[in-house]
Amino acid sequence: MFTPRAIGYVSSPYKTTSEIPKGLNTRHDAEGVLRILRDFELGLTDIEGFSHLFVIWEFDRSPDFALLGSPPFEERPHGVFATRSPRRPNPIGLTVVELLRRQNADLYVKGVDMLDGTPILDIKPYMSSVPMEKLRRGWLAEAEARKALEER
Amino acid sequence: MFTPRAIGYVSSPYKTTSEIPKGLNTRHDAEGVLRILRDFELGLTDIEGFSHLFVIWEFDRSPDFALLGSPPFEERPHGVFATRSPRRPNPIGLTVVELLRRQNADLYVKGVDMLDGTPILDIKPYMSSVPMEKLRRGWLAEAEARKALEER
Repeated sequence: MFTPRAIGYVSSPYKTTSEIPKGLNTRHDAEGVLRILRDFELGLTDIEGFSHLFVIWEFDRSPDFALLGSPPFEERPHGVFATRSPRRPNPIGLTVVELLRRQNADLYVKGVDMLDGTPILDIKPYMSSVPMEKLRRGWLAEAEARKALEER
Repeated sequence: MFTPRAIGYVSSPYKTTSEIPKGLNTRHDAEGVLRILRDFELGLTDIEGFSHLFVIWEFDRSPDFALLGSPPFEERPHGVFATRSPRRPNPIGLTVVELLRRQNADLYVKGVDMLDGTPILDIKPYMSSVPMEKLRRGWLAEAEARKALEER
């Protein structure tokens, strides 16, 4: 299989995992910069036309994987592939960010949930969405409903 | 950096890249199976509650990367990070599929655009969408508009 390499690094306000907002209904509004290495700058050509990007990155400070785990504010364990847990067999993260502006090889974005210094593996344009009314969201929807009941 | 490992393999109707539908307005309706290795089956717990999944996989039959390239039916070259080109610095693919049903460690899905036998790196639940009215889609929207004009 291939050997991963960083194409750049994330500048993020989060220095430790405890600072990253977690749990139900968390909104990720934090701004950050995807600092792409000069060697790859040409690969950003025309990226500024897209409002949203997929960022694929490495969980570089995550412990070994666990196939079952409990998300924050959820007592029940779920399979790692049904959660966004950092403890994955391949420590790969995926975040959708809004592209605010590009300055040379720096992409200023909104919506970061990575730690500062996180290695970036790939960036892809966000081309289409699944309509919200077509989504079923399993344990997440159930947990949101329970929380709404508790807060009534 | 980490060493990638396959958590499973895609069963797809596509044996060669020429069979994969490409170009503007292509719809990926093909059905396939994500055959997860037994060692990782526990990680699928509760995944059947989600209607859609992100599949992260390896372009295992792709040549070396090219920072600029022309997508199918588009004359102008774009940066690799503004396209879904397989020729990426890290040969990582991302596909959104609809989960039809699960049978043990096999996920029957709709929307595959990978080759048969493609190694799967990760699966994540699709939890939310960017509303279509908030998306700007750069060169892709321009190419679609040109095509619509040509077809009038």
